[in-house]
Amino acid sequence: MKPYKKDFTYSYALGIYTTIELLSARPNQVESVYAHSEYREVERLQNLCRELSVEVKRDDKIFNRVSQKENSYVLGIFSKYACKLSDTKPHVVLVNPSDMGNLGTIARTLAGVNITNLAIITPTADYWNPKAIRASMGALFHLEIEAFSSFTEYRECYKSHAIYPFILDGDIVLGLDSCPQNEQYSLVFGNEATGLDESFRKEGTSIQIPQSGITDSYNLAVSTGIGAFIFAKTNNQI
Amino acid sequence: MKPYKKDFTYSYALGIYTTIELLSARPNQVESVYAHSEYREVERLQNLCRELSVEVKRDDKIFNRVSQKENSYVLGIFSKYACKLSDTKPHVVLVNPSDMGNLGTIARTLAGVNITNLAIITPTADYWNPKAIRASMGALFHLEIEAFSSFTEYRECYKSHAIYPFILDGDIVLGLDSCPQNEQYSLVFGNEATGLDESFRKEGTSIQIPQSGITDSYNLAVSTGIGAFIFAKTNNQI
Repeated sequence: MKPYKKDFTYSYALGIYTTIELLSARPNQVESVYAHSEYREVERLQNLCRELSVEVKRDDKIFNRVSQKENSYVLGIFSKYACKLSDTKPHVVLVNPSDMGNLGTIARTLAGVNITNLAIITPTADYWNPKAIRASMGALFHLEIEAFSSFTEYRECYKSHAIYPFILDGDIVLGLDSCPQNEQYSLVFGNEATGLDESFRKEGTSIQIPQSGITDSYNLAVSTGIGAFIFAKTNNQI
Repeated sequence: MKPYKKDFTYSYALGIYTTIELLSARPNQVESVYAHSEYREVERLQNLCRELSVEVKRDDKIFNRVSQKENSYVLGIFSKYACKLSDTKPHVVLVNPSDMGNLGTIARTLAGVNITNLAIITPTADYWNPKAIRASMGALFHLEIEAFSSFTEYRECYKSHAIYPFILDGDIVLGLDSCPQNEQYSLVFGNEATGLDESFRKEGTSIQIPQSGITDSYNLAVSTGIGAFIFAKTNNQI
Protein backbone atom coordinates (compact mmCIF):
# COMPACT_ATOMS: atom_id res chain seq x y z
CA MET A 1 0.00 0.00 0.00
CA LYS A 2 1.25 3.43 -0.96
CA PRO A 3 0.17 7.05 -0.45
CA TYR A 4 -2.82 7.72 -2.68
CA LYS A 5 -2.36 8.83 -6.25
CA LYS A 6 -5.03 9.98 -8.66
CA ASP A 7 -4.48 7.17 -11.17
CA PHE A 8 -5.06 4.38 -8.63
CA THR A 9 -8.13 2.21 -9.23
CA TYR A 10 -8.71 2.26 -5.47
CA SER A 11 -8.70 4.86 -2.71
CA TYR A 12 -8.79 5.16 1.09
CA ALA A 13 -11.43 6.09 3.61
CA LEU A 14 -9.48 7.47 6.58
CA GLY A 15 -10.95 7.47 10.07
CA ILE A 16 -13.67 5.46 11.73
CA TYR A 17 -16.57 7.71 10.76
CA THR A 18 -15.64 7.78 7.09
CA THR A 19 -14.99 4.03 7.03
CA ILE A 20 -18.38 3.26 8.58
CA GLU A 21 -20.07 5.34 5.88
CA LEU A 22 -18.12 3.38 3.26
CA LEU A 23 -19.22 0.07 4.78
CA SER A 24 -22.86 1.10 4.99
CA ALA A 25 -23.22 2.87 1.63
CA ARG A 26 -20.86 0.92 -0.66
CA PRO A 27 -20.27 -2.50 0.92
CA ASN A 28 -19.52 -4.16 -2.42
CA GLN A 29 -16.65 -1.78 -3.11
CA VAL A 30 -14.78 -2.52 0.12
CA GLU A 31 -11.45 -4.30 -0.43
CA SER A 32 -10.08 -4.28 3.09
CA VAL A 33 -10.36 -2.62 6.46
CA TYR A 34 -7.48 -1.95 8.85
CA ALA A 35 -7.54 -0.97 12.51
CA HIS A 36 -4.51 0.42 14.35
CA SER A 37 -3.41 -1.40 17.50
CA GLU A 38 -4.20 1.74 19.50
CA TYR A 39 -7.78 1.83 18.26
CA ARG A 40 -9.99 1.04 21.23
CA GLU A 41 -13.41 0.30 19.79
CA VAL A 42 -12.38 -2.38 17.38
CA GLU A 43 -15.14 -4.76 18.44
CA ARG A 44 -17.91 -2.58 17.04
CA LEU A 45 -16.00 -2.30 13.78
CA GLN A 46 -15.44 -6.05 13.67
CA ASN A 47 -19.15 -6.72 14.15
CA LEU A 48 -20.01 -4.40 11.30
CA CYS A 49 -17.39 -5.98 9.04
CA ARG A 50 -18.42 -9.54 9.92
CA GLU A 51 -21.86 -8.91 8.43
CA LEU A 52 -20.15 -8.00 5.18
CA SER A 53 -17.66 -10.89 5.41
CA VAL A 54 -14.82 -8.39 5.58
CA GLU A 55 -11.87 -9.13 7.85
CA VAL A 56 -10.51 -6.30 10.03
CA LYS A 57 -6.75 -6.45 9.59
CA ARG A 58 -4.24 -5.19 12.16
CA ASP A 59 -1.14 -3.56 10.72
CA ASP A 60 0.11 -0.31 12.20
CA LYS A 61 2.68 0.31 9.49
CA ILE A 62 0.07 0.78 6.81
CA PHE A 63 -1.19 3.91 8.58
CA ASN A 64 2.18 5.61 8.28
CA ARG A 65 2.43 4.67 4.64
CA VAL A 66 -1.04 5.72 3.62
CA SER A 67 -2.38 8.47 5.79
CA GLN A 68 0.10 11.34 5.40
CA LYS A 69 0.06 13.73 8.36
CA GLU A 70 -3.43 12.69 9.45
CA ASN A 71 -3.88 10.75 12.62
CA SER A 72 -6.19 7.91 11.63
CA TYR A 73 -6.70 4.65 13.47
CA VAL A 74 -9.10 3.08 11.01
CA LEU A 75 -8.71 2.75 7.28
CA GLY A 76 -11.00 1.36 4.59
CA ILE A 77 -9.64 0.53 1.16
CA PHE A 78 -12.20 0.53 -1.64
CA SER A 79 -12.36 0.15 -5.40
CA LYS A 80 -13.45 3.26 -7.24
CA TYR A 81 -16.83 2.84 -8.92
CA ALA A 82 -18.90 4.43 -11.64
CA CYS A 83 -22.35 5.94 -11.08
CA LYS A 84 -25.25 7.05 -13.25
CA LEU A 85 -27.46 9.94 -12.22
CA SER A 86 -31.22 9.61 -11.94
CA ASP A 87 -33.39 10.95 -14.77
CA THR A 88 -35.94 12.32 -12.36
CA LYS A 89 -34.21 13.35 -9.13
CA PRO A 90 -32.69 16.82 -8.67
CA HIS A 91 -29.05 17.34 -9.63
CA VAL A 92 -26.25 19.66 -8.66
CA VAL A 93 -23.67 20.29 -11.38
CA LEU A 94 -20.20 21.54 -10.44
CA VAL A 95 -18.26 22.97 -13.35
CA ASN A 96 -14.49 22.50 -12.92
CA PRO A 97 -14.31 22.55 -9.13
CA SER A 98 -10.67 22.98 -8.11
CA ASP A 99 -10.57 22.39 -4.37
CA MET A 100 -10.81 18.92 -2.79
CA GLY A 101 -11.95 20.32 0.55
CA ASN A 102 -14.81 22.19 -1.13
CA LEU A 103 -15.80 19.03 -3.03
CA GLY A 104 -16.00 17.05 0.19
CA THR A 105 -17.88 19.79 2.04
CA ILE A 106 -20.36 20.10 -0.84
CA ALA A 107 -20.91 16.33 -0.90
CA ARG A 108 -21.71 16.47 2.84
CA THR A 109 -24.17 19.33 2.30
CA LEU A 110 -25.92 17.64 -0.63
CA ALA A 111 -26.39 14.41 1.31
CA GLY A 112 -27.77 16.59 4.13
CA VAL A 113 -30.41 18.25 1.93
CA ASN A 114 -31.31 15.03 0.11
CA ILE A 115 -29.86 15.98 -3.27
CA THR A 116 -28.02 12.75 -3.93
CA ASN A 117 -27.12 13.25 -7.60
CA LEU A 118 -23.96 15.20 -8.37
CA ALA A 119 -22.62 15.86 -11.87
CA ILE A 120 -19.03 17.07 -12.19
CA ILE A 121 -17.65 18.67 -15.33
CA THR A 122 -13.95 17.92 -15.88
CA PRO A 123 -11.26 19.10 -15.39
CA THR A 124 -11.94 18.72 -11.70
CA ALA A 125 -10.16 18.27 -8.42
CA ASP A 126 -10.00 14.55 -7.65
CA TYR A 127 -13.10 13.64 -5.65
CA TRP A 128 -11.66 10.20 -4.89
CA ASN A 129 -8.77 11.74 -3.02
CA PRO A 130 -8.87 10.68 0.66
CA LYS A 131 -8.90 14.38 1.61
CA ALA A 132 -12.13 15.00 -0.30
CA ILE A 133 -13.69 11.87 1.17
CA ARG A 134 -12.65 12.88 4.67
CA ALA A 135 -13.99 16.43 4.20
CA SER A 136 -17.30 14.85 3.20
CA MET A 137 -17.34 12.81 6.45
CA GLY A 138 -18.03 9.87 4.17
CA ALA A 139 -21.19 11.47 2.72
CA LEU A 140 -19.58 11.15 -0.69
CA PHE A 141 -20.31 7.40 -0.62
CA HIS A 142 -24.03 8.15 -0.38
CA LEU A 143 -24.07 10.23 -3.56
CA GLU A 144 -24.28 9.19 -7.18
CA ILE A 145 -21.45 11.12 -8.82
CA GLU A 146 -21.05 11.17 -12.59
CA ALA A 147 -18.30 13.03 -14.46
CA PHE A 148 -18.72 14.65 -17.88
CA SER A 149 -16.19 16.23 -20.17
CA SER A 150 -18.46 19.22 -20.87
CA PHE A 151 -21.76 20.71 -19.83
CA THR A 152 -23.10 19.87 -23.29
CA GLU A 153 -22.30 16.22 -22.71
CA TYR A 154 -24.13 16.35 -19.36
CA ARG A 155 -27.12 18.02 -21.02
CA GLU A 156 -27.30 15.39 -23.75
CA CYS A 157 -27.64 12.69 -21.11
CA TYR A 158 -30.18 14.53 -18.94
CA LYS A 159 -32.47 16.56 -21.14
CA SER A 160 -35.53 17.10 -19.00
CA HIS A 161 -34.10 18.89 -15.95
CA ALA A 162 -34.77 22.60 -15.57
CA ILE A 163 -31.35 24.28 -15.48
CA TYR A 164 -30.56 26.96 -12.87
CA PRO A 165 -27.07 28.40 -13.35
CA PHE A 166 -25.83 30.40 -10.35
CA ILE A 167 -24.35 33.66 -11.65
CA LEU A 168 -23.40 36.82 -9.73
CA ASP A 169 -25.94 38.92 -11.63
CA GLY A 170 -28.43 36.11 -12.32
CA ASP A 171 -31.99 37.00 -13.28
CA ILE A 172 -33.77 35.66 -10.19
CA VAL A 173 -32.58 37.02 -6.84
CA LEU A 174 -32.78 34.01 -4.55
CA GLY A 175 -34.94 34.74 -1.53
CA LEU A 176 -37.23 32.80 0.74
CA ASP A 177 -40.25 33.12 -1.53
CA SER A 178 -38.62 33.64 -4.94
CA CYS A 179 -37.18 30.16 -5.40
CA PRO A 180 -38.56 28.28 -8.42
CA GLN A 181 -40.97 25.44 -7.65
CA ASN A 182 -39.87 22.51 -9.73
CA GLU A 183 -38.85 19.14 -8.37
CA GLN A 184 -36.69 18.24 -11.33
CA TYR A 185 -34.02 20.92 -11.12
CA SER A 186 -30.35 21.07 -11.90
CA LEU A 187 -28.38 23.68 -9.94
CA VAL A 188 -25.18 24.64 -11.74
CA PHE A 189 -22.19 26.22 -9.96
CA GLY A 190 -18.92 27.41 -11.47
CA ASN A 191 -15.29 27.16 -10.47
CA GLU A 192 -14.03 28.80 -7.22
CA ALA A 193 -11.99 31.48 -8.98
CA THR A 194 -13.97 32.19 -12.14
CA GLY A 195 -17.59 31.21 -11.51
CA LEU A 196 -19.69 30.35 -14.57
CA ASP A 197 -18.97 32.08 -17.84
CA GLU A 198 -21.66 34.15 -19.54
CA SER A 199 -22.64 31.29 -21.91
CA PHE A 200 -24.39 29.50 -19.05
CA ARG A 201 -27.03 32.21 -18.76
CA LYS A 202 -28.88 30.89 -21.81
CA GLU A 203 -28.90 27.31 -20.51
CA GLY A 204 -31.81 28.05 -18.21
CA THR A 205 -33.03 30.49 -15.58
CA SER A 206 -30.07 32.14 -13.90
CA ILE A 207 -30.05 32.64 -10.14
CA GLN A 208 -28.12 35.09 -7.99
CA ILE A 209 -27.59 34.84 -4.26
CA PRO A 210 -27.97 38.40 -2.96
CA GLN A 211 -25.00 40.06 -1.27
CA SER A 212 -24.38 43.15 0.81
CA GLY A 213 -21.92 44.81 -1.55
CA ILE A 214 -19.00 44.41 0.86
CA THR A 215 -18.04 41.14 -0.81
CA ASP A 216 -17.80 40.06 -4.44
CA SER A 217 -18.92 36.49 -3.97
CA TYR A 218 -19.48 33.71 -1.47
CA ASN A 219 -17.22 30.72 -0.99
CA LEU A 220 -18.31 27.93 -3.40
CA ALA A 221 -19.25 25.49 -0.63
CA VAL A 222 -21.30 28.22 1.08
CA SER A 223 -23.15 29.31 -2.07
CA THR A 224 -23.88 25.68 -2.95
CA GLY A 225 -25.12 25.21 0.62
CA ILE A 226 -27.45 28.22 0.54
CA GLY A 227 -28.73 27.45 -2.98
CA ALA A 228 -29.24 23.72 -2.42
CA PHE A 229 -30.92 24.23 0.96
CA ILE A 230 -33.42 26.77 -0.38
CA PHE A 231 -34.23 24.70 -3.49
CA ALA A 232 -34.62 21.50 -1.46
CA LYS A 233 -36.79 23.25 1.13
CA THR A 234 -38.95 25.01 -1.46
CA ASN A 235 -39.59 21.73 -3.24
CA ASN A 236 -40.28 19.75 -0.07
CA GLN A 237 -37.30 17.48 -0.41
CA ILE A 238 -36.14 18.10 3.12
CA MET B 1 9.99 40.12 9.06
CA LYS B 2 9.33 36.53 10.04
CA PRO B 3 6.71 33.88 9.37
CA TYR B 4 3.59 34.78 11.32
CA LYS B 5 3.18 33.68 14.91
CA LYS B 6 0.11 34.01 17.07
CA ASP B 7 1.75 36.25 19.68
CA PHE B 8 2.80 38.92 17.16
CA THR B 9 1.12 42.32 17.55
CA TYR B 10 0.89 42.47 13.76
CA SER B 11 -0.14 40.13 10.96
CA TYR B 12 -0.07 39.84 7.16
CA ALA B 13 -2.62 40.24 4.41
CA LEU B 14 -1.36 38.04 1.58
CA GLY B 15 -2.35 38.67 -2.02
CA ILE B 16 -3.60 41.71 -3.87
CA TYR B 17 -7.28 41.20 -3.17
CA THR B 18 -6.81 40.75 0.56
CA THR B 19 -4.43 43.72 0.76
CA ILE B 20 -6.88 46.00 -1.05
CA GLU B 21 -9.58 45.07 1.47
CA LEU B 22 -7.15 45.87 4.28
CA LEU B 23 -6.37 49.27 2.75
CA SER B 24 -10.02 50.14 2.22
CA ALA B 25 -11.47 48.84 5.48
CA ARG B 26 -8.65 49.44 8.00
CA PRO B 27 -6.34 52.11 6.56
CA ASN B 28 -5.15 53.27 9.98
CA GLN B 29 -3.88 49.81 10.85
CA VAL B 30 -1.63 49.47 7.79
CA GLU B 31 2.08 49.43 8.64
CA SER B 32 3.56 48.69 5.25
CA VAL B 33 2.77 47.29 1.84
CA TYR B 34 5.14 45.26 -0.33
CA ALA B 35 4.92 44.35 -4.01
CA HIS B 36 7.04 41.64 -5.61
CA SER B 37 9.12 42.62 -8.63
CA GLU B 38 7.07 40.22 -10.73
CA TYR B 39 3.80 41.91 -9.78
CA ARG B 40 2.52 43.63 -12.90
CA GLU B 41 -0.23 45.94 -11.74
CA VAL B 42 1.76 47.83 -9.18
CA GLU B 43 0.59 51.22 -10.42
CA ARG B 44 -2.99 50.71 -9.28
CA LEU B 45 -1.72 49.60 -5.89
CA GLN B 46 0.59 52.62 -5.68
CA ASN B 47 -2.28 54.99 -6.43
CA LEU B 48 -4.38 53.43 -3.71
CA CYS B 49 -1.51 53.59 -1.23
CA ARG B 50 -0.60 57.18 -2.09
CA GLU B 51 -4.03 58.33 -0.92
CA LEU B 52 -3.24 56.76 2.43
CA SER B 53 0.34 58.07 2.46
CA VAL B 54 1.63 54.52 2.50
CA GLU B 55 4.71 53.68 0.47
CA VAL B 56 4.71 50.50 -1.65
CA LYS B 57 8.03 48.83 -0.91
CA ARG B 58 9.78 46.45 -3.29
CA ASP B 59 11.59 43.55 -1.65
CA ASP B 60 11.23 40.07 -3.10
CA LYS B 61 12.93 38.34 -0.21
CA ILE B 62 10.22 39.26 2.27
CA PHE B 63 7.74 37.09 0.34
CA ASN B 64 9.84 33.99 0.85
CA ARG B 65 10.23 34.77 4.51
CA VAL B 66 6.63 35.55 5.23
CA SER B 67 4.28 33.76 2.91
CA GLN B 68 5.01 30.05 3.44
CA LYS B 69 4.06 27.89 0.45
CA GLU B 70 1.60 30.49 -0.90
CA ASN B 71 2.42 32.34 -4.07
CA SER B 72 1.72 35.96 -3.20
CA TYR B 73 3.00 39.02 -5.01
CA VAL B 74 1.47 41.61 -2.72
CA LEU B 75 1.67 41.78 1.05
CA GLY B 76 0.13 44.16 3.57
CA ILE B 77 1.46 44.30 7.12
CA PHE B 78 -1.00 45.60 9.70
CA SER B 79 -1.25 46.09 13.44
CA LYS B 80 -3.84 43.94 15.12
CA TYR B 81 -6.72 46.00 16.52
CA ALA B 82 -9.52 45.64 19.04
CA CYS B 83 -13.21 45.98 18.16
CA LYS B 84 -16.45 46.46 20.08
CA LEU B 85 -19.70 44.99 18.82
CA SER B 86 -22.79 47.09 18.23
CA ASP B 87 -25.56 47.04 20.85
CA THR B 88 -28.24 47.04 18.22
CA LYS B 89 -26.98 45.23 15.12
CA PRO B 90 -27.31 41.45 14.71
CA HIS B 91 -24.47 39.24 15.95
CA VAL B 92 -23.07 35.84 15.16
CA VAL B 93 -21.34 34.09 18.07
CA LEU B 94 -18.86 31.29 17.38
CA VAL B 95 -18.11 29.17 20.41
CA ASN B 96 -14.57 27.74 20.28
CA PRO B 97 -14.12 27.53 16.51
CA SER B 98 -11.09 25.36 15.79
CA ASP B 99 -10.39 25.76 12.08
CA MET B 100 -8.80 28.88 10.57
CA GLY B 101 -10.19 28.13 7.13
CA ASN B 102 -13.73 27.92 8.52
CA LEU B 103 -13.22 31.19 10.40
CA GLY B 104 -12.18 32.97 7.22
CA THR B 105 -14.99 31.44 5.17
CA ILE B 106 -17.53 32.43 7.83
CA ALA B 107 -16.18 36.01 7.92
CA ARG B 108 -16.65 36.18 4.14
CA THR B 109 -20.22 34.90 4.40
CA LEU B 110 -21.16 37.28 7.23
CA ALA B 111 -19.86 40.30 5.32
CA GLY B 112 -21.89 39.00 2.35
CA VAL B 113 -25.15 38.87 4.29
CA ASN B 114 -24.53 42.17 6.10
CA ILE B 115 -24.01 40.69 9.56
CA THR B 116 -20.88 42.65 10.45
CA ASN B 117 -20.63 41.83 14.16
CA LEU B 118 -18.90 38.60 15.15
CA ALA B 119 -18.32 37.45 18.73
CA ILE B 120 -15.82 34.66 19.30
CA ILE B 121 -15.65 32.66 22.52
CA THR B 122 -12.12 31.54 23.38
CA PRO B 123 -10.30 29.20 23.09
CA THR B 124 -10.40 29.77 19.37
CA ALA B 125 -8.37 29.24 16.24
CA ASP B 126 -6.37 32.40 15.56
CA TYR B 127 -8.45 34.66 13.33
CA TRP B 128 -5.47 36.96 12.78
CA ASN B 129 -3.55 34.16 11.10
CA PRO B 130 -2.83 35.05 7.45
CA LYS B 131 -4.58 31.81 6.43
CA ALA B 132 -7.84 32.89 8.06
CA ILE B 133 -7.56 36.36 6.53
CA ARG B 134 -6.87 34.89 3.12
CA ALA B 135 -9.79 32.44 3.38
CA SER B 136 -12.00 35.45 4.14
CA MET B 137 -10.78 37.19 0.95
CA GLY B 138 -10.14 40.16 3.24
CA ALA B 139 -13.78 40.33 4.38
CA LEU B 140 -12.50 39.88 7.93
CA PHE B 141 -11.30 43.51 7.88
CA HIS B 142 -14.90 44.64 7.33
CA LEU B 143 -16.19 42.91 10.45
CA GLU B 144 -16.16 44.00 14.06
CA ILE B 145 -14.77 40.97 15.89
CA GLU B 146 -14.74 40.81 19.67
CA ALA B 147 -13.41 37.90 21.71
CA PHE B 148 -14.83 36.77 25.06
CA SER B 149 -13.57 34.20 27.51
CA SER B 150 -17.05 32.70 27.95
CA PHE B 151 -20.58 32.97 26.62
CA THR B 152 -21.59 34.42 30.00
CA GLU B 153 -19.08 37.23 29.54
CA TYR B 154 -20.49 37.94 26.06
CA ARG B 155 -24.01 37.94 27.45
CA GLU B 156 -23.14 40.39 30.22
CA CYS B 157 -21.90 42.86 27.59
CA TYR B 158 -24.83 42.44 25.19
CA LYS B 159 -27.98 41.81 27.15
CA SER B 160 -30.74 42.80 24.77
CA HIS B 161 -30.11 40.49 21.80
CA ALA B 162 -32.47 37.55 21.30
CA ILE B 163 -30.29 34.42 21.44
CA TYR B 164 -30.71 31.65 18.87
CA PRO B 165 -28.40 28.70 19.59
CA PHE B 166 -28.05 26.30 16.64
CA ILE B 167 -28.45 22.76 18.00
CA LEU B 168 -28.99 19.49 16.10
CA ASP B 169 -32.38 18.94 17.74
CA GLY B 170 -33.24 22.61 18.29
CA ASP B 171 -36.87 23.58 18.95
CA ILE B 172 -37.51 25.54 15.75
CA VAL B 173 -36.86 23.71 12.48
CA LEU B 174 -35.41 26.38 10.24
CA GLY B 175 -37.40 26.74 7.05
CA LEU B 176 -38.24 29.48 4.62
CA ASP B 177 -41.20 30.71 6.64
CA SER B 178 -40.34 29.54 10.16
CA CYS B 179 -37.42 31.90 10.81
CA PRO B 180 -37.97 34.27 13.75
CA GLN B 181 -38.62 37.90 12.85
CA ASN B 182 -36.40 39.99 15.08
CA GLU B 183 -33.76 42.40 13.87
CA GLN B 184 -31.67 42.20 17.01
CA TYR B 185 -30.66 38.56 16.95
CA SER B 186 -27.59 36.67 18.03
CA LEU B 187 -26.99 33.38 16.18
CA VAL B 188 -24.81 31.03 18.22
CA PHE B 189 -22.83 28.16 16.64
CA GLY B 190 -20.67 25.58 18.40
CA ASN B 191 -17.32 24.01 17.69
CA GLU B 192 -16.75 21.90 14.53
CA ALA B 193 -16.41 18.61 16.38
CA THR B 194 -18.72 19.00 19.35
CA GLY B 195 -21.37 21.60 18.48
CA LEU B 196 -23.02 23.44 21.36
CA ASP B 197 -23.50 21.64 24.64
CA GLU B 198 -26.97 21.19 26.07
CA SER B 199 -26.63 24.20 28.40
CA PHE B 200 -27.06 26.56 25.46
CA ARG B 201 -30.65 25.47 24.91
CA LYS B 202 -31.86 27.55 27.84
CA GLU B 203 -30.04 30.68 26.61
CA GLY B 204 -32.74 31.41 24.06
CA THR B 205 -34.79 29.81 21.29
CA SER B 206 -32.86 26.90 19.82
CA ILE B 207 -32.80 26.39 16.06
CA GLN B 208 -32.15 23.26 14.02
CA ILE B 209 -31.26 23.14 10.36
CA PRO B 210 -33.21 20.17 8.97
CA GLN B 211 -31.30 17.24 7.47
CA SER B 212 -32.09 14.20 5.39
CA GLY B 213 -30.92 11.60 7.89
CA ILE B 214 -28.00 10.49 5.73
CA THR B 215 -25.71 12.93 7.55
CA ASP B 216 -25.27 13.82 11.21
CA SER B 217 -24.48 17.49 10.72
CA TYR B 218 -23.43 20.14 8.24
CA ASN B 219 -19.97 21.64 8.01
CA LEU B 220 -19.75 24.65 10.38
CA ALA B 221 -19.15 27.18 7.60
CA VAL B 222 -22.13 25.76 5.68
CA SER B 223 -24.53 25.77 8.63
CA THR B 224 -23.47 29.30 9.54
CA GLY B 225 -24.04 30.26 5.90
CA ILE B 226 -27.53 28.75 5.73
CA GLY B 227 -28.54 30.12 9.14
CA ALA B 228 -27.14 33.63 8.62
CA PHE B 229 -28.59 33.91 5.10
CA ILE B 230 -32.09 32.93 6.18
CA PHE B 231 -32.07 35.20 9.26
CA ALA B 232 -30.68 38.15 7.26
CA LYS B 233 -33.22 37.62 4.47
CA THR B 234 -36.16 37.17 6.85
CA ASN B 235 -35.25 40.40 8.64
CA ASN B 236 -34.66 42.40 5.46
CA GLN B 237 -30.97 42.95 6.10
CA ILE B 238 -29.97 41.76 2.66
